[in-house]
Amino acid sequence: MTYCVAISLDAGLVFASDSRTNAGVDDVSIYSKMHLFDTAADRVVVLLSAGNLATTQAVTKRLERDLANPDIDVSINALAHLDEIARYVGEISAQVQSDFSGQPEQQTGLMEASFILGGQIQGQPHEAYLIYPQGNYIAASQEKPFLQIGETKYGKPILDRIIEPTISLERAGRCAMISMDASMRSNLSVGPPIELLFYTADSLTVARRCRFDQNDPYLTSLSSAWSEGLKRLFLELPRFDWE
Amino acid sequence: MTYCVAISLDAGLVFASDSRTNAGVDDVSIYSKMHLFDTAADRVVVLLSAGNLATTQAVTKRLERDLANPDIDVSINALAHLDEIARYVGEISAQVQSDFSGQPEQQTGLMEASFILGGQIQGQPHEAYLIYPQGNYIAASQEKPFLQIGETKYGKPILDRIIEPTISLERAGRCAMISMDASMRSNLSVGPPIELLFYTADSLTVARRCRFDQNDPYLTSLSSAWSEGLKRLFLELPRFDWE
Repeated sequence: MTYCVAISLDAGLVFASDSRTNAGVDDVSIYSKMHLFDTAADRVVVLLSAGNLATTQAVTKRLERDLANPDIDVSINALAHLDEIARYVGEISAQVQSDFSGQPEQQTGLMEASFILGGQIQGQPHEAYLIYPQGNYIAASQEKPFLQIGETKYGKPILDRIIEPTISLERAGRCAMISMDASMRSNLSVGPPIELLFYTADSLTVARRCRFDQNDPYLTSLSSAWSEGLKRLFLELPRFDWE
Repeated sequence: MTYCVAISLDAGLVFASDSRTNAGVDDVSIYSKMHLFDTAADRVVVLLSAGNLATTQAVTKRLERDLANPDIDVSINALAHLDEIARYVGEISAQVQSDFSGQPEQQTGLMEASFILGGQIQGQPHEAYLIYPQGNYIAASQEKPFLQIGETKYGKPILDRIIEPTISLERAGRCAMISMDASMRSNLSVGPPIELLFYTADSLTVARRCRFDQNDPYLTSLSSAWSEGLKRLFLELPRFDWE
């Protein structure tokens, strides 16, 4: 499992991903799930991946090969719109899954992968898309400013309460880390390091990319401030009328 | 879907359940999922149910019929230990599911139901059990003092942070309501009224049973105090080092 989230704000985009992959509890590894494509001056593209590691690796390798091949006119740098890139990634993903799905029907899901694609192309607004295993995709919006893939449920309530399009990149980044912390506490298959990437609208370059290991001082201080704050807040809640 | 939680504390037991059932988004109803068996002086037994409504209704009807039948020596009031009652409920549940599962294999899950059984029999400790659709069951413990059924993930992080066996029944009740609130916000299939039941250890009678409708003043004040407190807490979190 995995947990990734992207937040689309007026001020730009925030991406967060965990780094744990597992094929059974006795085969746990660390892989980055955040892929940055930043080789063209007119665009920044970030891809977060969840699901079958062989599928997500095959997809990102293919994206890189297409970028490096001068004879190909469909690539992350060549396509004119971010939603076309989402479609292109979705098609590759669906193709890879289908290539390796010779198993009985109930095994098909094992090859599945989903992606979040976000970024900006010069002259167009910044955007984020969630790409389903089937290859189709949806965009973030003012009403639904965040997108999640992987083990999404534990970390959703705090996003629901805090994220609004008008908040700062940093506040959204903190919220993504709290959401990640909740997921790591509740599900062993989500684990550090946490990667965080900030993109400022219209900058066409990555503002900041950070990596927080398990014992990172900021992650620890954030997590304990949140945990202790919640306990304090809990003591202040209105009492039942018979108390 | 449904969300039910039981919390086993040194001070006693707390049970909470939502009341929404749905068979598709165009067939939504209100049914209580909290069943109290309190007809014998030596015991209190509470059953929370999640899953297929026909299955859970068939199970509770059968439990009531067995109680009313003087010729039957296996019933909630007749069995000597709470774990035997868990086994008895699990067997009935598995039988009901099997009776109605003539469908193709992929449909079997539709008949599934799970239960939380809790209470106390005189001279024995108070206990809570989670009964799986297969009929087997696990007990709450000091290390895992709460049990959940239904749509469990959204409401788990706050339970993980707050619930310890030493807290008061009321504090655990508030935590169950916050957990329920998170689930209702994130999943339309969980909905009010919320039912809450408090059992004080060794009392052998129900301390209090409450029902909170959507616009209940206490539920509203709790929910908004929590929501505003979280937003305040968020503003106080440690900043990134570049801010």
